Amino acid sequence: MKRKTILVLGAGYGGLSTVVNLQKSLGTDDADVILINKNEYHYESTWLHEAAAGTLSAEQVRYDIKSVVSEPKVKFIQATVEAIDVKGKVVTTDVGTHTYDYLVIGLGFEGETFGIPGLDKYALAMANVKSARQIREHIEYQFATWSLEEVKDDSRLTIVVGGAGFSGIELLGELGNRVPELCEEFDVPAEKVRVLCIEAAPMVLPGFDPELVDYAVRQLNSKGIEFSIGTPVVEATPEGVNIKKGEDEFEFIKAGTVIWAAGVRGNRLIEESGIENMRARVKVEKDLRAPGHDDVFIVGDCALMINEEVNRPFPPTAQIAMQQGDMCANNIIALLKGEPTSEFVPDLKGSICSLGDDDAIGVAFGKKLTGKKASFMKKMVDNRALFLIGGLGLVMKKGKFNVLK
Amino acid sequence: MKRKTILVLGAGYGGLSTVVNLQKSLGTDDADVILINKNEYHYESTWLHEAAAGTLSAEQVRYDIKSVVSEPKVKFIQATVEAIDVKGKVVTTDVGTHTYDYLVIGLGFEGETFGIPGLDKYALAMANVKSARQIREHIEYQFATWSLEEVKDDSRLTIVVGGAGFSGIELLGELGNRVPELCEEFDVPAEKVRVLCIEAAPMVLPGFDPELVDYAVRQLNSKGIEFSIGTPVVEATPEGVNIKKGEDEFEFIKAGTVIWAAGVRGNRLIEESGIENMRARVKVEKDLRAPGHDDVFIVGDCALMINEEVNRPFPPTAQIAMQQGDMCANNIIALLKGEPTSEFVPDLKGSICSLGDDDAIGVAFGKKLTGKKASFMKKMVDNRALFLIGGLGLVMKKGKFNVLK
Repeated sequence: MKRKTILVLGAGYGGLSTVVNLQKSLGTDDADVILINKNEYHYESTWLHEAAAGTLSAEQVRYDIKSVVSEPKVKFIQATVEAIDVKGKVVTTDVGTHTYDYLVIGLGFEGETFGIPGLDKYALAMANVKSARQIREHIEYQFATWSLEEVKDDSRLTIVVGGAGFSGIELLGELGNRVPELCEEFDVPAEKVRVLCIEAAPMVLPGFDPELVDYAVRQLNSKGIEFSIGTPVVEATPEGVNIKKGEDEFEFIKAGTVIWAAGVRGNRLIEESGIENMRARVKVEKDLRAPGHDDVFIVGDCALMINEEVNRPFPPTAQIAMQQGDMCANNIIALLKGEPTSEFVPDLKGSICSLGDDDAIGVAFGKKLTGKKASFMKKMVDNRALFLIGGLGLVMKKGKFNVLK
Repeated sequence: MKRKTILVLGAGYGGLSTVVNLQKSLGTDDADVILINKNEYHYESTWLHEAAAGTLSAEQVRYDIKSVVSEPKVKFIQATVEAIDVKGKVVTTDVGTHTYDYLVIGLGFEGETFGIPGLDKYALAMANVKSARQIREHIEYQFATWSLEEVKDDSRLTIVVGGAGFSGIELLGELGNRVPELCEEFDVPAEKVRVLCIEAAPMVLPGFDPELVDYAVRQLNSKGIEFSIGTPVVEATPEGVNIKKGEDEFEFIKAGTVIWAAGVRGNRLIEESGIENMRARVKVEKDLRAPGHDDVFIVGDCALMINEEVNRPFPPTAQIAMQQGDMCANNIIALLKGEPTSEFVPDLKGSICSLGDDDAIGVAFGKKLTGKKASFMKKMVDNRALFLIGGLGLVMKKGKFNVLK
């Protein structure tokens, strides 16, 4: 019997977790495991707000894939996936094609701008480690230029963050801590800097406990961050954003930096693959397979699962993605052995939203947390993700330990 | 008898050296010494190429003026000089006016673009610590953006340095070392980066020994730097520079970064003051006073002195500026005592042009030096400047010691 080929697309939390679990459980001769990823590194997409604000370097939020997967058990190929043909069972990349017996799609999210004019062109996004790094450099360049120019354009020092969801708030938290450093470094008086959060919905952090949300807004306010809630961005221009404040009331906010952190969707390759999807996310079967495609698993941000308790989709988190990778590996091994697959049930340990290096809000093990305790838990969550993928060695190399000081 | 007021404009090498020498020699009640400077810090204008390339931070190339001058002997006022009235003996700043009995003008150089269209608008300059810092941030932003963008514009990675004089070459030396770091940091393949030096004159480093110049060009070539000599820049645009390669032959070089390092002049306030000058530099008397103005001394880049041995002006160097500050202080003290002033004679200890952190060329104590020896000497020169102004404490804080490793 010919050895089966397991092809895993994407080395995010879902894909990489699948691969390291296969690597643990399979013998060298049990199957061919191939991992394809655009970059030679994995990046912590839950840490991008830190790279964007500049509180961590791009290097600190990524690590070499080869440091956690290894030949001969797993073959890693650095390539960009261009098309997925689930009928012909072949994946096309920029450096060649690959057939498979089992396919795991872990291609992650893309930004969603909801057709708002100008956003794709003039707003920056925390879509990946390179775009986060560009945000940092963009802000630093604006500060350096303001400091130098004779006729000062104060709007260079205005940073608009679109979106008061998880990503937006975590970014604002980092900016709250980073701006005073930037002022010091670039000789900018703090009172010249404005950081604004613009949100279309009438609330901050939907889904979070209102008491925790109040705390977050208060803390961010105390760091000088302004909120404009229930005011959709209607257009972005090279100069800033236009927001809708009432029926016929608009306000233009001149800003040197506009960061869009208000929407994600699945990967467009899914839409093009012919797999049934909603905004590029696939409502997966209970064992994580795509409906009608018994050899295709979907993990991570492209997998849509309904939380029946609240009749809403589970959020696309690293926690769930890694649990899915674990179960996906189990189920592929079951299929290889001719055994039945198991049902994936998320084990929600809680959710913590960082408000900078020293503050956070969240719920963990059923308890509401704020401040240093929540921040400590957040770092433990980040370190745990490293541990699950790369063991203690990776935690020591990339983990967050400043809490211990 | 009323105490005399000595007003010193500018805390560069010349002005600060004047003040610290006055501070050493004068008693508290001998005179009122007032130092006016735009920033609260002094910066090492001979280190700006390092801040521009990013091999040193802006913070490393500057220090607080108050760390070297102190009340009650010297009153430091942070203000921008707006006008010098040598007839009315009054200096106007953005925060008030000051009369004086003796005036010391140490206002430093300004960039000179020789009327070449577009240069003032589209080229960056190493005019001060803020503009050097902007160059660094500009280059980093270009690299970050190239790394991110889908359709790559390789000209973002082209850096044009206009000028193969001292400043241009020192900057190229730093860039030669910095570019590989930038490639690593921003995931840019080294072969995509171009660093070009464009020089109108038919030679590199005029005034330097040809053997040393050959060495410098060879070393910079080996770091991938290209030279185009005898080819004037005729225009700068937002896209790059147009250079003249022959009678009717022009070449447009598309470049994301253009740095103009090809000309300096004196300060324009001198031109407006009515003091006789040539391109804002004053041909000073032998005791450093301005002709026809017995109460006005000029030190540093705005003081023009002819080296009679070669019948050319002495170059505007930190070495000479600090010696002038020393003599200026002596001569003011002599005038206070009713004694005759002394003649200033530069003591030229040599000149070393850095080619990056690990290489240099130059002549010191009559000997030609290259490579690590020259680089060591250069750092000793830099540390000596710190010592002369702020003593051993300042050397320990800001000195260059990596040679000792």
